[in-house]
Amino acid sequence: MLFHGLSAFPITPADPHGRVEETALSALLHRIADAGADSVGLLGSTGSYMYLSRGERRRAIETAVDCLGGRTPIIVGVGALRTDESIALAQDARDAGAQGLLLAPVSYTPLGDDEVFEHFAAVAAATDLPVCVYNNPGTTHFSVSNALLRRLAEVPTIVAVKNPALPAADMPAAHRATQSALPADFAIGYSGDWLAADAVLSGGVAWYSVIAGLLPRPAVKLMRAAQAGDRAETQRINALFEPFWALFRELSSYRVVHAAANLLDLNSFDPPRPILPLSRADRQRVKAALDALSSV
Amino acid sequence: MLFHGLSAFPITPADPHGRVEETALSALLHRIADAGADSVGLLGSTGSYMYLSRGERRRAIETAVDCLGGRTPIIVGVGALRTDESIALAQDARDAGAQGLLLAPVSYTPLGDDEVFEHFAAVAAATDLPVCVYNNPGTTHFSVSNALLRRLAEVPTIVAVKNPALPAADMPAAHRATQSALPADFAIGYSGDWLAADAVLSGGVAWYSVIAGLLPRPAVKLMRAAQAGDRAETQRINALFEPFWALFRELSSYRVVHAAANLLDLNSFDPPRPILPLSRADRQRVKAALDALSSV
Repeated sequence: MLFHGLSAFPITPADPHGRVEETALSALLHRIADAGADSVGLLGSTGSYMYLSRGERRRAIETAVDCLGGRTPIIVGVGALRTDESIALAQDARDAGAQGLLLAPVSYTPLGDDEVFEHFAAVAAATDLPVCVYNNPGTTHFSVSNALLRRLAEVPTIVAVKNPALPAADMPAAHRATQSALPADFAIGYSGDWLAADAVLSGGVAWYSVIAGLLPRPAVKLMRAAQAGDRAETQRINALFEPFWALFRELSSYRVVHAAANLLDLNSFDPPRPILPLSRADRQRVKAALDALSSV
Repeated sequence: MLFHGLSAFPITPADPHGRVEETALSALLHRIADAGADSVGLLGSTGSYMYLSRGERRRAIETAVDCLGGRTPIIVGVGALRTDESIALAQDARDAGAQGLLLAPVSYTPLGDDEVFEHFAAVAAATDLPVCVYNNPGTTHFSVSNALLRRLAEVPTIVAVKNPALPAADMPAAHRATQSALPADFAIGYSGDWLAADAVLSGGVAWYSVIAGLLPRPAVKLMRAAQAGDRAETQRINALFEPFWALFRELSSYRVVHAAANLLDLNSFDPPRPILPLSRADRQRVKAALDALSSV
């Protein structure tokens, strides 16, 4: 059940040289565990994995394992442009004590299905850890089709997918199509916070959540309502998140959640350049979005 | 005049662990210099820059500087996801003796214009070397608009752009629009080998060429015909390249030129995984394309 439920994706606080701040990361992880999230999605896109060196990625995992002590399972992003580098990152994650892997088909030269299949098979074979396919076309520029997912599902340790959620009207049919392509026990979860509650109501078994990395308590409440199939309560809570969702859509969840972490004194650094911090005016909007959630 | 004329982009021969093969790289560079290309575009997309470590990128530059001894100027790709990393790569290129820099707005988190501007300004300020803006939306997923180029042209050392060539019918108007946005001495050159001859006939001052990295002699002939404005001769030679251009469009120039280098015994290795080598059938087509050029 590792790839079921609410997976909270924290930012990885790091200084301008890309050195991970262990104390700030630990504080974020304690919040997530205390709130009762089902897993931590460490070093996801939100966690800046593509902007951190192998050594710092390893240090982030070691920090998380030390801090959580098995209380909440840790899923680690091990994407890289080179297959051998992803293999090394997967082995690092296993050696450091992670429970699962999240693997994105990161690309520079555009990739074909056979290339992505071979890449995933090689990385999966490098450890015994279960693997979730991180389908994130907005950053990797590769879209994992249901046909490719079906091939990947034949690799014994590839057991889950994190798909981008679609608008609510398209979600039930899309979920059924993905389900029908895959073995019954393959865990189909979703990311895209502003669409995730509807994706869970449509049958998704996991929400891979950016906001839960920073505000795990209200995110857990939203997820539990959606998992219970309580549409009214889901919509009520989701409406309180709407100021955040609007900012995520406009400015990207990555930039917004970094600004929110600054405002909450949970991180003193900005995202890595070339990403710029939000303007003063946008930070004010983030503050208002935080205030709107205080009643959840 | 560094960013004028034919710039030949060699592959960077490297073993499966990403270790650069100095002897094979030197052989490619000697061919380029002997054929009379105007510059070498080292560590471009064709040269696998995003798949090589900082240390190996530095070793490739040192090899090229040693090998060419100033005979042909060297332009080095210094793109990276982090600004501080691109700065370090630019300083490495300067320290190793390169003549110019090629900088692509590589992205994972999608970037905005202000972020790309600040990134370029910071990297340009790190050395005195002239910089060419490497506009390659197919791999970086960021398109440098004419408006952004105009801003970048105000940075004193940013003096050139490598734009993707458009189909011949659209090229003259597109070139004029770019020209009118920029200072008169800003060097506007093109990549996309199958469209490049027409781009030069339309006024482009440089061809940033994949095929010239492997087959510099026929590429120099094609470029000189286009530079002379000799449409008939340009079309005659370009037609002999057409089997290559068709393969480039279908399979990507990166994969095709690696296969061609194997066939010519100029490189014994495959591209870095996850990129797969071409199938046997496609390699036969590459061999036929090589044969078609033997008369140039």
